[in-house]
Amino acid sequence: MEGVKQVREALAGGVPVERIVFSERYGGAPFAFPQERQTLVSEAVFSKLSEEAAPQGVLAVLPVPPCAPQPPRGNALLLDGVADPGNLGTIIRTANGAGYEDVYLKNCTDPFSPKCVRAAMSGVFFVRLHIGGEEELFRALAGVPLLCADMAGESMDAFSPPERFCIVIGSEANGVSDTVRARCSHTVSVPLRQTCESLNAAVAAGILMYRFLKK
Amino acid sequence: MEGVKQVREALAGGVPVERIVFSERYGGAPFAFPQERQTLVSEAVFSKLSEEAAPQGVLAVLPVPPCAPQPPRGNALLLDGVADPGNLGTIIRTANGAGYEDVYLKNCTDPFSPKCVRAAMSGVFFVRLHIGGEEELFRALAGVPLLCADMAGESMDAFSPPERFCIVIGSEANGVSDTVRARCSHTVSVPLRQTCESLNAAVAAGILMYRFLKK
Repeated sequence: MEGVKQVREALAGGVPVERIVFSERYGGAPFAFPQERQTLVSEAVFSKLSEEAAPQGVLAVLPVPPCAPQPPRGNALLLDGVADPGNLGTIIRTANGAGYEDVYLKNCTDPFSPKCVRAAMSGVFFVRLHIGGEEELFRALAGVPLLCADMAGESMDAFSPPERFCIVIGSEANGVSDTVRARCSHTVSVPLRQTCESLNAAVAAGILMYRFLKK
Repeated sequence: MEGVKQVREALAGGVPVERIVFSERYGGAPFAFPQERQTLVSEAVFSKLSEEAAPQGVLAVLPVPPCAPQPPRGNALLLDGVADPGNLGTIIRTANGAGYEDVYLKNCTDPFSPKCVRAAMSGVFFVRLHIGGEEELFRALAGVPLLCADMAGESMDAFSPPERFCIVIGSEANGVSDTVRARCSHTVSVPLRQTCESLNAAVAAGILMYRFLKK
């Protein structure tokens, strides 16, 4: 996890940071973090570690949390083939903000890649990610009605979600896969004007997540 | 505007395409478009015109529509300092989908850059864009209540929008500027869990646009 703001927020949020690495150039305020787990490296070394074009000279090392599929404890989201790290991170960021605390990933890009962690604004450490094959994921989701997001579905304006549910968002290019779709109990859509064929996957996910929240 | 799907959708949507340019490599179906306004160029020329890493060999030339600020005819959106072309395009794509037909741009990145046009999925040609300085934009918006999107605002769940309104979305880094904020009649927020400091600007804009639609 890279950048002053991200690392500060992770510490403030109680994420289990293992180590903070600084470059020699870092001139900002110190971090409230045990000295023996802070490492100073040369500019040359830091630039090898960094994924940023203009690094701020601070990054944190974090353990990948356990991701074996478990049943959801509250609102849930299933992502089926989200391929772009920016989209995946943005969706996880929104899930964290909206309180969808269990996010299931099937055939998605790596949620712990630096690009996804950055787009998620630490959300990958605040929601519970469940990663597995289709059978394993659906065992964990047994009994939870699945709401398939699809442009051809029932308008979300006319739809009342059941007490428990899991929203299913498909890949950017192909939507929800046929095998997952076959397990969904409802298909819902964001209504669109005729000149718009579809929304960005992260935007559609955000609209549906907030629309179906119990108030 | 580049790519087979984008150009087909623009033609289908009645966007005034001036010319279609093909590379020698293009082997797809022909376009229903006057022959005398189709141009075939070499691979070398096309690669100079293209902004894509893997060009599909089709692009369309379109006129920049007039963007002098006018009063809105229906739902309106004001973007104040949106700097990322991908974010700007994604917001315009959603505005088109949701039926916010008038989008006002103050200090934003160029909406007609190839990157923004691509993210907008032709939305830049289907909504009316109004570009101008602050005074000019606010003359056009005179009498329209402005709803400032801000994390410190009233929760959207507790808010009923007035009959006419314009949603104001600020820059990714700094939110809505002070001078624009001073003109807003309400400040509204997307409610967030504590571990999430903010949403992506395009996601927040999408959630608010759909929440405030009259059903």
